[in-house]
Amino acid sequence: MNRRVLVTGASGFIGRRALIELVARGFEVHAVARIPPAPSPANVHWHRADLLQAASRRALLAEVDAGDLLHLAWYAEPGAFWMARENAAWVAATVCLVDEFAAAGGRRAVLAGTCGEYDWSAEQPLHEDALLRPATFYGVCKDATRRVVEDLAERVGVSLAWARVFFLYGPGENERRLVSGVAKRLVSGERAQTSAGTQRRDFLHVDDVANAFAALLDCEVTGVLNIASGESVTVRSVVDEVAQAAGRPDLLDIGALPPRASDPDEIVADVTRLREEVGFTPAWTLADGVRQTVAWWRDQAGGRSNTSSSVA
Amino acid sequence: MNRRVLVTGASGFIGRRALIELVARGFEVHAVARIPPAPSPANVHWHRADLLQAASRRALLAEVDAGDLLHLAWYAEPGAFWMARENAAWVAATVCLVDEFAAAGGRRAVLAGTCGEYDWSAEQPLHEDALLRPATFYGVCKDATRRVVEDLAERVGVSLAWARVFFLYGPGENERRLVSGVAKRLVSGERAQTSAGTQRRDFLHVDDVANAFAALLDCEVTGVLNIASGESVTVRSVVDEVAQAAGRPDLLDIGALPPRASDPDEIVADVTRLREEVGFTPAWTLADGVRQTVAWWRDQAGGRSNTSSSVA
Repeated sequence: MNRRVLVTGASGFIGRRALIELVARGFEVHAVARIPPAPSPANVHWHRADLLQAASRRALLAEVDAGDLLHLAWYAEPGAFWMARENAAWVAATVCLVDEFAAAGGRRAVLAGTCGEYDWSAEQPLHEDALLRPATFYGVCKDATRRVVEDLAERVGVSLAWARVFFLYGPGENERRLVSGVAKRLVSGERAQTSAGTQRRDFLHVDDVANAFAALLDCEVTGVLNIASGESVTVRSVVDEVAQAAGRPDLLDIGALPPRASDPDEIVADVTRLREEVGFTPAWTLADGVRQTVAWWRDQAGGRSNTSSSVA
Repeated sequence: MNRRVLVTGASGFIGRRALIELVARGFEVHAVARIPPAPSPANVHWHRADLLQAASRRALLAEVDAGDLLHLAWYAEPGAFWMARENAAWVAATVCLVDEFAAAGGRRAVLAGTCGEYDWSAEQPLHEDALLRPATFYGVCKDATRRVVEDLAERVGVSLAWARVFFLYGPGENERRLVSGVAKRLVSGERAQTSAGTQRRDFLHVDDVANAFAALLDCEVTGVLNIASGESVTVRSVVDEVAQAAGRPDLLDIGALPPRASDPDEIVADVTRLREEVGFTPAWTLADGVRQTVAWWRDQAGGRSNTSSSVA
C-alpha cells in the first residue's frame, strides 16, 4: 500500500507543486484547502477544511487517517504576513494539528519554517545551528511553533523535520513579490522601480522548494533543515536576470526606490544538511528559472491581451 | 469606575487567592472556571467557560469586556503536568486568548510563566535575563507561549507582564505536592518518606504569590518578572519545618527515597525586579507559612476524623 500523506496549504504556491512531486514518489496524496482549486492534478484526493477551526481540523484528520503530514498552511498574504496578528492563530492551529496528528497515530511530519527564525545579523551562510532572533512577528511565531512541535514529536515518537524556507520565485507567484512583480511589469511594457538591490539573498525556484519538501518527507531525516539554494546573489543581479529574460533592461529603474531601513545585508543558507543528508540537488539554475518565470508572465500577458486593452 | 479584570484559572490554587487580593485593590473581578467553586468570595462575578474551546473563550471575552487580564489557567495536574501533551493545547488557547483580548480592546495583561523556562544549570540566582533552556515539555510550552504573546502585545499596544513562578506551598495545595503531602501524613500520624532533600529551591507562600500577581497587574511593569522569595533553602530544611510544626519529627524518613536523576541542585530566583519595580515584599516567612499550612491540614484531619476512622 502506498504511504498516505496529508498536505496542508495544498492550494498555495509551494503546495500545489508539492502535490505533484509526492504523487510522483508514489504517495497517496490527500490535499486540504479551504477552497480546493480547479483544475487540479489527477491522483490527488481533495478535502475541504479550515485548519483554524478545531472541529474542521479534527474531522479532516479522522477522515484522512494519514501516516504522513506535510504542513505548509500558514497565513501568507504578501507583505502583510511578516507582521500580521493572523500568525498567532497559526501557531495555535499548528501546535494542535501536530498534537492531534500524533494522537491519531501519525508517524512522520514535515513542517514549513522560515529563514525569519534566524538572527539575520549572524555569520553567513546560516547553518541550522545559527543563533535565533526573529525580527518579525512571523518569525517569532514560526520559531515558537517549532519549539513546541519538535519537543512534542520527540516525546510522542513522531518523526519530525522542520524546513526553514528562504526566498523563492517561480511561475504563479503573487505579483506583489519581487521576481513576479518586476517580470509582470516588464513583459507588459511598464517601467519597474526597484531599490539599489545591493542586499544579498538566497533564491530557490519553487519547483525545487516543493521537490525538497517531498524528498524530506520521503526520508527519515529529523530536526531543522534549510531549504534553499545555498547561493548568495544580490537582489540587483536577480532583477537584471529578469530584465534580460524579458528583453527590456531599458524599463528597469534600479535605485529608484530607497533601501528598506531594516533590510539585512545578506541572508543565505548553509545547505549542507539538505544536500548531504536528504540528498537533494536543485534542478533549476537561477538564470533558467527566471527565464521560465518571465515566459510564464509573457503567456499571461498574451492571454489577457485578448480581453484587456491595457496590456501592450 | 473600577478597573474590570478577567481572571482565568480562578478556581485554582493561586487563582482563588488572587481574586481576594484583586477585590481588595478595588478591581471589579470577573472570574472564570469550567466549574465555578462554591462557596466563593463575595464581590466576585463568576463565569463558566472552557478556554480550550474557541467559541467559549470568545463568548466569555465579549461578555466580560475587561480592560485587564490575569491569565493563570493552564493544565496543572500534579506530577503529570511537566510532560503532559495537554500543554500543547494551552499554548494554543493562551496565544489565541491574548490575541482576542487585544482585539477586543484589552489594555493590560499579566500571565503566569514558570521557572521551568530557564536553563536550570545556569548560574543561580536566576535573573530574568538568564539563559533559557526548558528541560520539560511544560517549560517548552510556557517559553514558546511567552515568545509569541510578548511580541504580539508589543505590536498591538497591550501592556504585558510575564511572571515566572517558582515553587509554592500553602493551605489547600494538592496533597501530591511536597509540603502538603508531608504535612498531611504527619498530622495523620503516618510516616512520610522523602529523598535526602539536599537540592535547594525557592519557596513562596501561595498568599504571597497571589498578592504578587495582583500587585503586578496593578502597576505598569512589563516584560518578564520572577515571582519567588529569592531565598534558597534545601528541601530537607522545608521538610524539617513541616515535621517541627506537626510535632512529629519521629515520623519523617528523610533519605528513604532515592534522589530523582534529573533533579537540579539549585533553583532560586533573583527577585530584584519584583522587589524594586513592583515594590512587592512577601508577608509570610517560610517557618510561619509552613506552620499555617500544617495547622490547616490538622483542621482537615480533625474535620475528617468525624467521618473516617482511618485518621488518628
